[in-house]
Amino acid sequence: MPDDHTVAGFSADMRAIRSQVAEMGALVEMQIANAVTALSDYDPQLAESVIALDLKVDLMQREVEQKVIETIARRQPFATDLRATISAFRIASDLERIGDLAGNICNRALALDQVGPRLLLPRIAQLSTLVRDQLKRVLASYIEADAGGAAEVWQRDVEVDAMHKSLFLDLLTSMMEDPRNITSCAHLLFCSKNMERMGDHATNIAESVRYMITGDRFTDDRPKGDDTSLMVPFPRS
Amino acid sequence: MPDDHTVAGFSADMRAIRSQVAEMGALVEMQIANAVTALSDYDPQLAESVIALDLKVDLMQREVEQKVIETIARRQPFATDLRATISAFRIASDLERIGDLAGNICNRALALDQVGPRLLLPRIAQLSTLVRDQLKRVLASYIEADAGGAAEVWQRDVEVDAMHKSLFLDLLTSMMEDPRNITSCAHLLFCSKNMERMGDHATNIAESVRYMITGDRFTDDRPKGDDTSLMVPFPRS
Repeated sequence: MPDDHTVAGFSADMRAIRSQVAEMGALVEMQIANAVTALSDYDPQLAESVIALDLKVDLMQREVEQKVIETIARRQPFATDLRATISAFRIASDLERIGDLAGNICNRALALDQVGPRLLLPRIAQLSTLVRDQLKRVLASYIEADAGGAAEVWQRDVEVDAMHKSLFLDLLTSMMEDPRNITSCAHLLFCSKNMERMGDHATNIAESVRYMITGDRFTDDRPKGDDTSLMVPFPRS
Repeated sequence: MPDDHTVAGFSADMRAIRSQVAEMGALVEMQIANAVTALSDYDPQLAESVIALDLKVDLMQREVEQKVIETIARRQPFATDLRATISAFRIASDLERIGDLAGNICNRALALDQVGPRLLLPRIAQLSTLVRDQLKRVLASYIEADAGGAAEVWQRDVEVDAMHKSLFLDLLTSMMEDPRNITSCAHLLFCSKNMERMGDHATNIAESVRYMITGDRFTDDRPKGDDTSLMVPFPRS
């Protein structure tokens, strides 16, 4: 059995790691919000600031990874404690990916300005609100070790997929209605897909929270993934 | 200092983990090849088989993760040995994502059949050949602990990005030339993007190999990422 000193040391390490993951999560939430504002309001400065923040998020991920590795090496945790370290490692990696996707939306925001009319932006904003809410909830479930909260996020990913699917259809329709929309809609297709993928990362985080608490993964009633890859909305006649 | 028994035990564990990662890599390489054949030859059965293989790849990833966690808990590795375990954990995660992306291409292969003419397929095949070669090389660099080989893969990602960029442009052009191409080209845009992301995962694996060997990350001459998100090929006049 580890002595009290080790137990206390491990708890202190984990508190520091959790707090850094939470801080990273708050930054990434802000990146999503600002990316969509930059897109909607045409704000190139804001777009650049989101892209610049990516370096900080990357750095924070490396720090979390480093702390996790040091904690495993120094404290030799097992069972629940070991799972807590592994989950932090995974969650930091998902958060870093969400930050990348927000940065990619900002690159597209900068490109879109040049092509003028940006269609369906309110729908993109609506999708981003849902995705941010998913992220906020799953991070709360992580901090509070709330398996029920994580399960709700996991189940609700279908709403993200449905919204992306409907946007996908409407963007293709806009392209067909006016070929001058093709470039801007192609970028918005990727913006919508990026948001759908952020939703998947929130779902991954929900999986990590469940694993941390129970050692299990979600198995039944797995939400359907994005099925726009299977869609042929306008078959050639 | 660990005694000989622990050292031998750790080496045996790592051999088993490395061999499972290599096996996973071979499966994923096959998934990429088959996904592109399914797309080019319209072979729905082959497409379904790639999608079905995803379950096996997911399972293998979990096994690698489990073995890594057990090895850390049981052998308490440090320094190089600890980095070897962490790298295997990361590489398995990148391979699993590549498998997902191949599955997504197969979903699109099934959808594309229904819309008839599939443009620019030879170029997609060419891109996939490059990406598979990157994956093959980076896995060899992992098995042989060859930091130089990993660095070459890391540098060569610019070629993947350039090929994706040129496809992105030509797909938009095809959409503009004939609106009936819009649905199929939208799917092919995502196929090309998926391939570009597989290239990024190969680059991530190169980073993990370098980290495993040296404890450092690549810092200078970082290859430019995909910049198609910034492209406005046809500004509205």
